[in-house]
Amino acid sequence: MIIIGERINSSRKAIAPAIAARDSQLITREASLQIAAGVSYIDVNCGTLMEEEPEALEWLVKTVQDATEGNLCSLDSPNPLALERALKVHKGKPIVNSITGEHERLAATLPLVRDYKTAIVALVMNDNGMPETAEERLQIADDLVNELTKAGVELTDIYLDPMVRPVSTGGHYGRVVFETIQKMNQEFPGIHTICGLSNISFGLPARKLMNQTFLIMAMMAGLDSAILDPLDKRLMSLLKAADVLLEQDDYALKFITAFREEKLEF
Amino acid sequence: MIIIGERINSSRKAIAPAIAARDSQLITREASLQIAAGVSYIDVNCGTLMEEEPEALEWLVKTVQDATEGNLCSLDSPNPLALERALKVHKGKPIVNSITGEHERLAATLPLVRDYKTAIVALVMNDNGMPETAEERLQIADDLVNELTKAGVELTDIYLDPMVRPVSTGGHYGRVVFETIQKMNQEFPGIHTICGLSNISFGLPARKLMNQTFLIMAMMAGLDSAILDPLDKRLMSLLKAADVLLEQDDYALKFITAFREEKLEF
Repeated sequence: MIIIGERINSSRKAIAPAIAARDSQLITREASLQIAAGVSYIDVNCGTLMEEEPEALEWLVKTVQDATEGNLCSLDSPNPLALERALKVHKGKPIVNSITGEHERLAATLPLVRDYKTAIVALVMNDNGMPETAEERLQIADDLVNELTKAGVELTDIYLDPMVRPVSTGGHYGRVVFETIQKMNQEFPGIHTICGLSNISFGLPARKLMNQTFLIMAMMAGLDSAILDPLDKRLMSLLKAADVLLEQDDYALKFITAFREEKLEF
Repeated sequence: MIIIGERINSSRKAIAPAIAARDSQLITREASLQIAAGVSYIDVNCGTLMEEEPEALEWLVKTVQDATEGNLCSLDSPNPLALERALKVHKGKPIVNSITGEHERLAATLPLVRDYKTAIVALVMNDNGMPETAEERLQIADDLVNELTKAGVELTDIYLDPMVRPVSTGGHYGRVVFETIQKMNQEFPGIHTICGLSNISFGLPARKLMNQTFLIMAMMAGLDSAILDPLDKRLMSLLKAADVLLEQDDYALKFITAFREEKLEF
């Protein structure tokens, strides 16, 4: 699994003041812990800072990359001004998180993705709103992939997000996502599929349990990337077990090592 | 999910002496706890008692059914003498657990399945031993289903077991089982698929974690029945969450009820 660590987000209580105060110690710590837990990318999001966002995002990228010997970031903003400042200082190929099929958002962000040769998370929604069925999702995915490849983006740099909706608002939304992931992989070989875990359980109790179960099932459907909290030991333990069962962990070496290092919770 | 509770098995330390002493209180308690946890069938196994098995199995069936207002049993024995004594006293339709495609075992057990109109767990192995690939498993499944339906057994009374082999002895054995389950459901609509959870993790650490993850993935592949310990709260919590995501729990009512009754562990 390709894991994007979601912890550096100004919507979290401890993070907002740390960003506002440019507390590089706290951000460094959050970055280091996530790397130790095995993330490939560190998501940085300071959207709640509003007009201060561009400067803060640039600072976050510099701070995270300084703290981690250049670990790659996922630049989590719909704001092209913030993205551009972050892209100017980011070393290596980041993920831009995210675009949608909405015309304005796409028009504003696609040139940055093209010029800075970034990877990109593409959410399958458009100006008609949230899609209902798997077919609608795949139609939007098709449009997005066309736009992106026309701009020179490789399939292996595209992370399609199937747009998870809460099962509390429609019992079929789990199945819809699983089917969408399967078909995305069939239709676009080499592409990545990605999602967050918390939408699925909105409105239900025991949300962590539901999110964990959803992740395992989505991996079984073909999900190869996820945005999650890598310090959630129980979630990461299930993920590592699933990697073994999907032949993503030769001889279960990573699983056994995690066990020996007491990183598994069971 | 159709759950067969596996706790009444003479290979468990507390159970063997209880059966030997015909301790109906302990067996009654084990049966009642499993029913409260939501099983459809209670497995009874006293194979370690050797020549005493037939009499003990009869006693187990009577004791369990007396204790539970006639809850159905899974008669877990390859011994036709033990099976027949148990079948003579069992009320309602039990599951015979199990037959294989091995000629002798099949010849000895099939008449009982036919005469007593039982449901049946059929393991996809035969006189050539354990199958290696999904194709071999499906070939044996085909033979077994033919034999059983010829004897008048309905598809809906057949529980095919895909023969789980440890991922520690072959990294692909998870995938092989998932593929086998999917194809069994495609090929024999209406049939059940079933397995135990512990084989998969043999030789690995953190076995419970691996077994839990395997169950969720197998359910995603189409598994509709399992032999497990229903008092494993964590396992049952994941199973209930998976039922929601697979639309097996309308409005998540069972999940929410389990949460309110503090039956979920997360």
